[in-house]
Amino acid sequence: MQTSVKSKRPRTREIGIQIGHLPTGEYNGIIDVPGVKVGHVTLVSGEGKLKPGKGPIRTGVTAILPHGGNIFRDKVTASAHIINAFGKSIGLSQLMELGVIETPILLTNTLNVWTVADALVDYVSAQNPDVYSFNPIVGECNDSFLNDILGRHVQREHVFEALESASETNIEEGVVGAGTGMSGFGWKAGIGTASRVVKIGETEYTIGVLVLTNTGAASDLRIDGFPIGRKLTPAEVSDKPLGSIMIIIATDAPFSHRQLTRVAKRAAFGLARTGAIASHGSGDFVIAFSTNRSDASLDEGGITVFFRAVIEATEESIINSLLKAHTVVGHDGNVRHGMPIGRVIEILELNPPV
Amino acid sequence: MQTSVKSKRPRTREIGIQIGHLPTGEYNGIIDVPGVKVGHVTLVSGEGKLKPGKGPIRTGVTAILPHGGNIFRDKVTASAHIINAFGKSIGLSQLMELGVIETPILLTNTLNVWTVADALVDYVSAQNPDVYSFNPIVGECNDSFLNDILGRHVQREHVFEALESASETNIEEGVVGAGTGMSGFGWKAGIGTASRVVKIGETEYTIGVLVLTNTGAASDLRIDGFPIGRKLTPAEVSDKPLGSIMIIIATDAPFSHRQLTRVAKRAAFGLARTGAIASHGSGDFVIAFSTNRSDASLDEGGITVFFRAVIEATEESIINSLLKAHTVVGHDGNVRHGMPIGRVIEILELNPPV
Amino acid sequence: MQTSVKSKRPRTREIGIQIGHLPTGEYNGIIDVPGVKVGHVTLVSGEGKLKPGKGPIRTGVTAILPHGGNIFRDKVTASAHIINAFGKSIGLSQLMELGVIETPILLTNTLNVWTVADALVDYVSAQNPDVYSFNPIVGECNDSFLNDILGRHVQREHVFEALESASETNIEEGVVGAGTGMSGFGWKAGIGTASRVVKIGETEYTIGVLVLTNTGAASDLRIDGFPIGRKLTPAEVSDKPLGSIMIIIATDAPFSHRQLTRVAKRAAFGLARTGAIASHGSGDFVIAFSTNRSDASLDEGGITVFFRAVIEATEESIINSLLKAHTVVGHDGNVRHGMPIGRVIEILELNPPV
Amino acid sequence: MQTSVKSKRPRTREIGIQIGHLPTGEYNGIIDVPGVKVGHVTLVSGEGKLKPGKGPIRTGVTAILPHGGNIFRDKVTASAHIINAFGKSIGLSQLMELGVIETPILLTNTLNVWTVADALVDYVSAQNPDVYSFNPIVGECNDSFLNDILGRHVQREHVFEALESASETNIEEGVVGAGTGMSGFGWKAGIGTASRVVKIGETEYTIGVLVLTNTGAASDLRIDGFPIGRKLTPAEVSDKPLGSIMIIIATDAPFSHRQLTRVAKRAAFGLARTGAIASHGSGDFVIAFSTNRSDASLDEGGITVFFRAVIEATEESIINSLLKAHTVVGHDGNVRHGMPIGRVIEILELNPPV
Repeated sequence: MQTSVKSKRPRTREIGIQIGHLPTGEYNGIIDVPGVKVGHVTLVSGEGKLKPGKGPIRTGVTAILPHGGNIFRDKVTASAHIINAFGKSIGLSQLMELGVIETPILLTNTLNVWTVADALVDYVSAQNPDVYSFNPIVGECNDSFLNDILGRHVQREHVFEALESASETNIEEGVVGAGTGMSGFGWKAGIGTASRVVKIGETEYTIGVLVLTNTGAASDLRIDGFPIGRKLTPAEVSDKPLGSIMIIIATDAPFSHRQLTRVAKRAAFGLARTGAIASHGSGDFVIAFSTNRSDASLDEGGITVFFRAVIEATEESIINSLLKAHTVVGHDGNVRHGMPIGRVIEILELNPPV
Repeated sequence: MQTSVKSKRPRTREIGIQIGHLPTGEYNGIIDVPGVKVGHVTLVSGEGKLKPGKGPIRTGVTAILPHGGNIFRDKVTASAHIINAFGKSIGLSQLMELGVIETPILLTNTLNVWTVADALVDYVSAQNPDVYSFNPIVGECNDSFLNDILGRHVQREHVFEALESASETNIEEGVVGAGTGMSGFGWKAGIGTASRVVKIGETEYTIGVLVLTNTGAASDLRIDGFPIGRKLTPAEVSDKPLGSIMIIIATDAPFSHRQLTRVAKRAAFGLARTGAIASHGSGDFVIAFSTNRSDASLDEGGITVFFRAVIEATEESIINSLLKAHTVVGHDGNVRHGMPIGRVIEILELNPPV
Repeated sequence: MQTSVKSKRPRTREIGIQIGHLPTGEYNGIIDVPGVKVGHVTLVSGEGKLKPGKGPIRTGVTAILPHGGNIFRDKVTASAHIINAFGKSIGLSQLMELGVIETPILLTNTLNVWTVADALVDYVSAQNPDVYSFNPIVGECNDSFLNDILGRHVQREHVFEALESASETNIEEGVVGAGTGMSGFGWKAGIGTASRVVKIGETEYTIGVLVLTNTGAASDLRIDGFPIGRKLTPAEVSDKPLGSIMIIIATDAPFSHRQLTRVAKRAAFGLARTGAIASHGSGDFVIAFSTNRSDASLDEGGITVFFRAVIEATEESIINSLLKAHTVVGHDGNVRHGMPIGRVIEILELNPPV
Repeated sequence: MQTSVKSKRPRTREIGIQIGHLPTGEYNGIIDVPGVKVGHVTLVSGEGKLKPGKGPIRTGVTAILPHGGNIFRDKVTASAHIINAFGKSIGLSQLMELGVIETPILLTNTLNVWTVADALVDYVSAQNPDVYSFNPIVGECNDSFLNDILGRHVQREHVFEALESASETNIEEGVVGAGTGMSGFGWKAGIGTASRVVKIGETEYTIGVLVLTNTGAASDLRIDGFPIGRKLTPAEVSDKPLGSIMIIIATDAPFSHRQLTRVAKRAAFGLARTGAIASHGSGDFVIAFSTNRSDASLDEGGITVFFRAVIEATEESIINSLLKAHTVVGHDGNVRHGMPIGRVIEILELNPPV
């Protein structure tokens, strides 16, 4: 079982693209929100013909922890927005009723969500032995083009490893964790992340986004607006729009459930800016949470800058998830190419910082 | 592993209570909707002190099949309504987006939903080997008062057994299937079912309901309106309202997704008539489907009689789920008494048919 | 133009019916919530044949003010729940987005809502001359059985009068304000109100409800559970369920928008207990607001008692709206009889307090 | 009272911009959907200092008729999607419950919606004298920057004129009807329209969009992806994002209410592509209807191309609403400049067709 190699491919800003007006956080990732931790387990093994249950395996699991404590005991305010619900996300009904998340959030492949949710309950149940009700949050995209999805290869131990290895400095992107087998805009895609910092008076707040990209038709791709998909598409790829995307938003701003709902809806704007159209078969879910557990509140008249922050960070996360993803060969010779960075630079007439 | 004994306790009508105006179907159950099948697997074993993972076990799984064919290939129109979402039901987001159900519906206990969903995917995947995306529908209530819920004792084989044993004549109620460990209004409760027949012009349509009752405070209970809970409550039971209830509605009337949404919302009226108040901790979910796959449609101006049918059948299903449930002793001597039928007859001044 | 005579008919408790467990507020009305004011303008004139635009007039307008100050400047937290949306209520989209009410709430007849909303904007605009956006909240039921509804007889001056005459001690019910021409369960109905007091620790909170009843089939009526509609129906009345009902909930408990949404949903349970079924043509809307503008918050685990309070107060408000309403003759000899109080007492075997 | 001069400014395609992949309808407007009619009444009078109630007047009303018959008798299937609900749109609750539109759709300014709705009821009531319930659909944006909005200058006669003058060939855009006083991205904006043709098998369907644009920050504007707002902004305009937008979608494809909901959600993607961020104060509403009243239905697997059509037509409608709008001076010397077409052509390096 091979683990991911840290991608040396560049992020959006490293080739000179600056999306939006607002400043980024230190890492330009969801982990810039204080306390948020990310962990990935990447499963890559086998090659050749698909043998359901055997492989080849190109999948994984990604964990996002709102904070490092016992989340069930110390719940965080949350909301969700569903752009297109051809998807199997778990836990959203209770999340919307009670306005909180009480477990880490896990991302994986479509047919693994129930096993992963069950393992997540094992994990939080061990921390909270007297509790008889948990609401695990698990999202997914479909990696069957590269991965033996019917094999449901993400198991209990992988879930535990993703949770336990999660760190506040994990900025891995591309072919990692749940992103291992995903595609976007005809290219290899996967995990991407970005952040923005918003200043309200003297206080700085961070909005961080992490996406699991598995959506988009090649010819539709726009990078920072530029319709690059009209000039650059992978050879031999159907131009049918793929589905889906999971978008996780974290912030330390003291938003209520209702306000997080408003914030979450703006993720669709960031997605749309990349040229995605949320096709019929897409499961496009947004989950937003605030780590702020004080009694503070913000003047809602000033919420628009947070909308902008989400839109910018979502757009940049998606582009990161493409740029950082290297070529992967899956079952039956199915291949998704990493975007050719040189061509992107050339077409966009970029001057990457040295 | 002991299976359920067919309950000899009476149903609502058998003690002379007639809820509502409309006629019932032949069996007065959800199976009156042509093609609908129901199966239960009841798990009862062990006694004494709770040993998580070991028992005692008082739980089960219930399967409702919209028809006997391949449901994934031959989907049925569906909708859902959430009364209170402190619950873990699986599959509702996609159900609401696409307006269909593509798997059987399973009911079980709270912490078993993910295992059961995973097993359900095994089942439908075996029927549809070339498909890489399924949306299993699973609902739950919390049976931890009697059952070793942390043990998650409902396994893959029980799911398969419930699905494979499902029949068009299964009218079991009370302490059976997912209802094995459930309580309601301070009494033992579980599965209940009822149906109504609606005549539109020359055509007869059936509305069938099946409930998994685990809700209600003892003193709130109303039977056919009569506030019996003011006169009859179980000894030594806290009067705290319990949660939750799952309400499944089937019909052969040609309703659209939008119309089924309207129909599903009326289940809350049937629930309310029993005195339930949908407490904070309740997971009260309604799922409605139509087996009618013709192009027919009904004049919406005439939909009110179907609302009435749902309300009546839901109310009667809940009362059935109480009357039919015998006393069960769970872990640590926890006991839920079956309602004392004689006292019910006495207080309601009933003249049961001989 | 004749004003309403204060009804001498009894309220629910005055004939010995005690709905639910919780204590009432001082007036047992929505005005028990400190600061809440209610005003009615009742329009009754003409008789005989319907001449659209001329009369006879049996209609009015009811104002509910969350507090006596400038509501636009000092907004109150709010939410809404729609039971059945065959209705023309105004202002709910913005209310749900921002979670506040910024004007008084007005109730009137179906075809008058737009004129009334426009007049309400005149009213709040005069108080706030520099503001160019207002979100008036107006609800309605259809009084066309008795009233010349096409005449849209509620005009600007009536709206102003209702707002300006609103008081913290107005406990009028029955044939008054927006209730003037309404019917329920085959009988004359109209305005009803009730309240409950909830004690959390040492603090008392009030939940007040005001309903505009125009719903229900005669044979479905249940009073405190008892299915009186099976024994007592008005002569010569179709048993078709009527629509609609407006339910306004006020509280001084410090609920958030999300929590008020949960609270509002329980009004449907109070409605259902009366035997109503929310027919196709019903516009059944619930609006809930909290006058508490402090930073306080309540432990959500204790919210269930507020659900109970809403259910009880809604049920009692509806019964009040029936009992208090005297017989009214409308156009073309159309008549709605006030419920015969003596018969109600007799059938329910009540012992009214002397 | 001065009427609009037909704008000689170019549409998007007339300067060489081709948004998206799909072909347009004949007029490239909502009127390409057979039967759909559009009418505008433009109110422009006075200048100088704002005298509330007197002027200056820069406003109007726009009517969209799903067909030329009696819409109440011959309702059309419809749905809506709310992007951000800081707005006063009327009629959406019932539209979502019943899934139909039963009146023409009117657009006007924020404070005129209730008067306009009342007038619309006059109009449909005259056509249907025996009906006592109508659900008028009216949307709005806020034109107070240029217009005396408190004056509510759109009156009954203007509504009737817009309805009666509506035609199947009206392709007016920019400073016309409800768009008279609106702004977008710092520029003068207003009405825009576009259409796309989708071929399913041998059948062609049309998707038409009409927008009332009053949204967007100058520096955010993207035209066909290109971030032109970074290079071209109006002098002396605050870069605060404005609100709002109304987006009306018509089609002759046989979509159900649920499917139209999905279609309507994609309008947000078209909006996002222009750089809009749906600010706090935006009232961004989408209304979609199908004129197809046959029993036909489409394979939902093929719905994605309609999503694309909506996105493209929305994006193009918004750009049209900017390009076509000439400079307007409102009250107190407030001015919104029409986009300088020459500069747009220059910056985008366009080669307009001669």
